[in-house]
Amino acid sequence: MKAIRLGLLGCGTVGGGVIQLLHDNASYLAETVGAPLEVARVLVRDAVKERVPPLDRALVTTDPEVVLGDASIDVFVEVMGGVDPARTYVERALDAKRGVVTANKMLLALHGPALLDRAVHNGVDLAFEGSVGGGIPVIRVLRDALASDWVIRLEGIVNGTCNFVLTRMRDAGLSFDAAVKEAQDKGYAEADPGLDVDGHDAAHKLVVLAMLAFGARVDAASVPTEGIRAIQPIDHRFAARFGYTIKHLAIGRDQGEAIELRVHPALVARDTPLANINGVLNAVALEGRALGPCMLSGRGAGDMPTAVSVVADVLDVARAKLSGIPGLSTRGIQMQARPVKPLGDVRSRYYLHFLVHDRPGVLARIAGALGEAGVSIEQMVQEGGGGSTGAAVDIVLLTHHALERDLGRALQVVVQSGVAAAPPRLVRMLD
Amino acid sequence: MKAIRLGLLGCGTVGGGVIQLLHDNASYLAETVGAPLEVARVLVRDAVKERVPPLDRALVTTDPEVVLGDASIDVFVEVMGGVDPARTYVERALDAKRGVVTANKMLLALHGPALLDRAVHNGVDLAFEGSVGGGIPVIRVLRDALASDWVIRLEGIVNGTCNFVLTRMRDAGLSFDAAVKEAQDKGYAEADPGLDVDGHDAAHKLVVLAMLAFGARVDAASVPTEGIRAIQPIDHRFAARFGYTIKHLAIGRDQGEAIELRVHPALVARDTPLANINGVLNAVALEGRALGPCMLSGRGAGDMPTAVSVVADVLDVARAKLSGIPGLSTRGIQMQARPVKPLGDVRSRYYLHFLVHDRPGVLARIAGALGEAGVSIEQMVQEGGGGSTGAAVDIVLLTHHALERDLGRALQVVVQSGVAAAPPRLVRMLD
Repeated sequence: MKAIRLGLLGCGTVGGGVIQLLHDNASYLAETVGAPLEVARVLVRDAVKERVPPLDRALVTTDPEVVLGDASIDVFVEVMGGVDPARTYVERALDAKRGVVTANKMLLALHGPALLDRAVHNGVDLAFEGSVGGGIPVIRVLRDALASDWVIRLEGIVNGTCNFVLTRMRDAGLSFDAAVKEAQDKGYAEADPGLDVDGHDAAHKLVVLAMLAFGARVDAASVPTEGIRAIQPIDHRFAARFGYTIKHLAIGRDQGEAIELRVHPALVARDTPLANINGVLNAVALEGRALGPCMLSGRGAGDMPTAVSVVADVLDVARAKLSGIPGLSTRGIQMQARPVKPLGDVRSRYYLHFLVHDRPGVLARIAGALGEAGVSIEQMVQEGGGGSTGAAVDIVLLTHHALERDLGRALQVVVQSGVAAAPPRLVRMLD
Repeated sequence: MKAIRLGLLGCGTVGGGVIQLLHDNASYLAETVGAPLEVARVLVRDAVKERVPPLDRALVTTDPEVVLGDASIDVFVEVMGGVDPARTYVERALDAKRGVVTANKMLLALHGPALLDRAVHNGVDLAFEGSVGGGIPVIRVLRDALASDWVIRLEGIVNGTCNFVLTRMRDAGLSFDAAVKEAQDKGYAEADPGLDVDGHDAAHKLVVLAMLAFGARVDAASVPTEGIRAIQPIDHRFAARFGYTIKHLAIGRDQGEAIELRVHPALVARDTPLANINGVLNAVALEGRALGPCMLSGRGAGDMPTAVSVVADVLDVARAKLSGIPGLSTRGIQMQARPVKPLGDVRSRYYLHFLVHDRPGVLARIAGALGEAGVSIEQMVQEGGGGSTGAAVDIVLLTHHALERDLGRALQVVVQSGVAAAPPRLVRMLD
């Protein structure tokens, strides 16, 4: 039986995992696909570097032409990461009418719709399970399992670094810096953790999820994005006191005309499944109109989980190729440009932290500013102070639902009134 | 374009949901499949009963021959439930080389391997996502997403009635009977709740999961199965005190030669995702060798969630039919008969409840019996008594890991010693 020939673009840890899985499960995979899967070419940056054992070094090259120009290759597997030159390679493979599997979330977030259009136009497959949530089969579930349903909302813990840092701050009382340092020591965070802790990685993943969940073609730069740098250990303490835990979330809501997409830390009720996804684990909770609520969780990153997802995609694309009707993976993905709702128009409950000088009338000032803006208070706790007038005290409020624009106005009034010893801190609450 | 013609066997609430989804999403589904999906025949028990609106009554018949004998039908959808006559109908459809989609867990649990063999022999598809976990796409994940991985262990909350009853006992302090009554009033439990609360339904689902997760062909009757009738409100209180919650679990472990499958209530650590799956929600947690941990949760039953899963299967089977290479859904499902490990050979930690007469030396008697059997105690709490000698007091122990056979021996010694005012209660703890 003629083998399905694979061209690997990149062979870092994920690529190595893919080769390992293909090797270890060769006969089983051949049976389930209907043909053996053969690694035909492997593009690497450094041909000298030691590779994983099952890779025949004769297949390795540093010359993209040798891989992309090989007309015998059926499916390209892009596991090099980054936007350039990955994008050019994927485009070229699609134009040559080859199926492509990619695990590249940044590429998908920035150029996903155009690449999908290109795949559809060429009548070939573009599969990307590995791009979001590593080992969590969320793309497959959105595409296949929910084919006859509509996703109304989704919330994801999609950045393992953020989740690890927040978990350690909460459980071990670490500062942000200490928790990031620990994440780096354990290999969970990059030397420059900005892409993760500032929320950009989560925003990329949200854009990819929104393509499938809401059929939305969204500019990644238009997604309101906040990281976790502003969260203080005291916020974790207060959140726990109110029965919540702080998670960094990617949130999507389909609201007809506009779509609500936002990335920020949020208070999540402690007795919900999402609140108990800890450490480097990721999760995506979603709600289908017919399906109801559904949650998937697992390792959001890591070589082997991502490799499992990539191989699952390779099987799909290989089967589609063998069936003579390729393009199944992209069929039915209908996307249209959708405006993202501005943050000011979002309605939410809020956690507010004020550090104030302990003087008579301070609380009245804050409550007055909120009340005038139409923001009503659900709970309030004051801590510290207790004696010496003028000492700094912490006031934490939970609000009822309010429009973010109104809340912003109220906070501005508080700041201008001079009662705050530090800028007020706002954390949205998940409904 | 020629339509894919569907023959529905049964048209209760799930069948009605399938017709509704096919109707509401007709054009989208036609695009993703590559051909329109057409309900051609519908077998019902009662032709007079009012049906959901989008069903043309001319298609409805009470005569199985009219549906099964219709050579124009491409795919049969069995949503009638029960073993007979569903089994005969499915066999006949497979022998006629038609793809079959079924949501029938009992049929799958009792005859799954034989039906899968029959599908493979006839070169057609047999898909059954709807049979386990309603709207949770666990079958698809085990079959497709994990194609290149091995599942080492799985734990499922797979019976919504049990989970609802345990949740209400814990949260509202209800007795078992009162919680079952409430479940019945809400439509979450049958008039005769035995199949659910005695664990048999969960055992059926575990057998289906074990087919896909472990490639195990298992006799459902050989799975050690306990329900939740023995759990008392006091057990929930003690579990909470130790940081646990009680869930009814279906547990599977692949251990090479023997396979460990068991269904029973268990103490689950409260800060884990599984412990926070409440009410009628279901979940399956699993661990892949390469993938690591992964959990899926959602509505485990209900008409629309199950219908979404059935339609997803219909799409797969229809696509496979159109591709000219049917049988994809069963490819690679390799099963071999596997013995189930006897409960006595299972190692676990245990929660033990003793109601004893408060007399000197009682605790020493219990501790002595456990120690002699090699079972060591991790924690102990005594409650009640405190004064009048002979009053009944509750003693709760958590043990370290022990062999269930050894523990059983120890409990027998305690019973024979006469110190217990009631039979001791044992609840296993999830590792």
